[in-house]
Amino acid sequence: MKPLSLNTVTVREKWGLAECIEGCARHGIPGISPWRDVLAAMGVDAAARQIRDAGLTLTGLCRGGMFPAADAAGRAAAIEDNRRAIEEAHKLQARSLVMVCGGLPPGSKDIQGARRMVREGLETILPEARAAGVTLGLEPLHPMTCADRSVLSTLGQALDLCAALGEGVGVVLDVYHVWWDPELSHQMARAAGKIAGFHICDWLVPTTDLVFDRGMPGDGVIDISGISQMVSAAGYDGFVEVELLSRRWWAEEPDEVLRIMKERHARVV
Amino acid sequence: MKPLSLNTVTVREKWGLAECIEGCARHGIPGISPWRDVLAAMGVDAAARQIRDAGLTLTGLCRGGMFPAADAAGRAAAIEDNRRAIEEAHKLQARSLVMVCGGLPPGSKDIQGARRMVREGLETILPEARAAGVTLGLEPLHPMTCADRSVLSTLGQALDLCAALGEGVGVVLDVYHVWWDPELSHQMARAAGKIAGFHICDWLVPTTDLVFDRGMPGDGVIDISGISQMVSAAGYDGFVEVELLSRRWWAEEPDEVLRIMKERHARVV
Repeated sequence: MKPLSLNTVTVREKWGLAECIEGCARHGIPGISPWRDVLAAMGVDAAARQIRDAGLTLTGLCRGGMFPAADAAGRAAAIEDNRRAIEEAHKLQARSLVMVCGGLPPGSKDIQGARRMVREGLETILPEARAAGVTLGLEPLHPMTCADRSVLSTLGQALDLCAALGEGVGVVLDVYHVWWDPELSHQMARAAGKIAGFHICDWLVPTTDLVFDRGMPGDGVIDISGISQMVSAAGYDGFVEVELLSRRWWAEEPDEVLRIMKERHARVV
Repeated sequence: MKPLSLNTVTVREKWGLAECIEGCARHGIPGISPWRDVLAAMGVDAAARQIRDAGLTLTGLCRGGMFPAADAAGRAAAIEDNRRAIEEAHKLQARSLVMVCGGLPPGSKDIQGARRMVREGLETILPEARAAGVTLGLEPLHPMTCADRSVLSTLGQALDLCAALGEGVGVVLDVYHVWWDPELSHQMARAAGKIAGFHICDWLVPTTDLVFDRGMPGDGVIDISGISQMVSAAGYDGFVEVELLSRRWWAEEPDEVLRIMKERHARVV
């Protein structure tokens, strides 16, 4: 069974990074994946030390990307931010830097243009990522986030980009974003050696919000076990992160969230 | 320019079918596409007569489909309902019967199984549709509706199904459902002769509801004009329906909605 990792966004309303690290140790969760806001609050050096001292594996740093912008200054600022993210991922020895690539610039209807900005942004930062030994993990996001979060929408599209960019680039797969895709099993056959991260949560029926209504694994309709087997068949035997953006679970006591996610991980993966 | 058609769901909270027919005549909108609930309320024969008397073209009947069900009785009931829909479409001389194929049966995580039920359902009703001269218009729906409305999610998937089913089956394209698709232009090249309907509305940023927050054409981020040109290049020169499921527009005075949609149609198509 793939070992479990806590993505810190899952308990973001009640725990900072120090509490997440202690919580993982207390619950016997061997991996952690911080978002950069909680990382900044603790400081990168202190975080690296405490994560190492707790014996945790840092499975991914969330997140780089967000390349498209309305003007050159905005695009340059995005590149600068991605450089800082690479440096942080290097210091933390993160297994990958998760890339949420960005949507349309405000006011734009030019999706091809936004896709070009994503590719150009990745090409610009890739030499530095390679030099730092940081894998860029391209995460295709659900098409409902295309306008404002990610014009990278499918596994097939992410693998095409991997192939074009070459070494140092992989894909991060979240079942929430890819479960609906009729091309999923076909594309998974191309993903061997390219999977840099695997995230789980669940699709609820009904879903009441496009961003903040993800379900606890097992509470929805995604065949998580089936997708996990595909990911194994593609040669990935790394960690599985639970990443919940959910108003319902954010309101819960974090120790209870960790207890339940550990139990669900054992059942559904 | 492709002529305009009113999909009756756009004004469903304030107008029945009779008012829609009169409204189209009053605003010089030459096409209409009724949903089956307003059709049933008026009666099929009366509707056919009034639509003909008003000189309107019936561009599509919404909707058949919804094939997957948890048991054989449920699937048989869906087939029966589709048979009635074909009969109605025949009486109305509708250009197509729009197929919203259905999501996962309640409690199921078996997306492959649901896709099989869709295909088997279509195979079952196709001989009757052919005999009645009714084109089945397969409408791929946005992946965010996969769990509860349509496991048919992309144009590519719909065209594969067309090819497998043969004569009498086409695709209905709604910009809202396909605009994000990285395969869109590539798949559109396969769609020549297969497009049985074209719907427009817009993707708002932010979108606050997965079903009832569609935008008026021009108010969102979709390059409607670009997609309309692709549809023309694929040989479609039929009507363009405005189909809005929107709490905001449902609250508006319907004559005002028709006035604005007519103006937007002239501007964005």
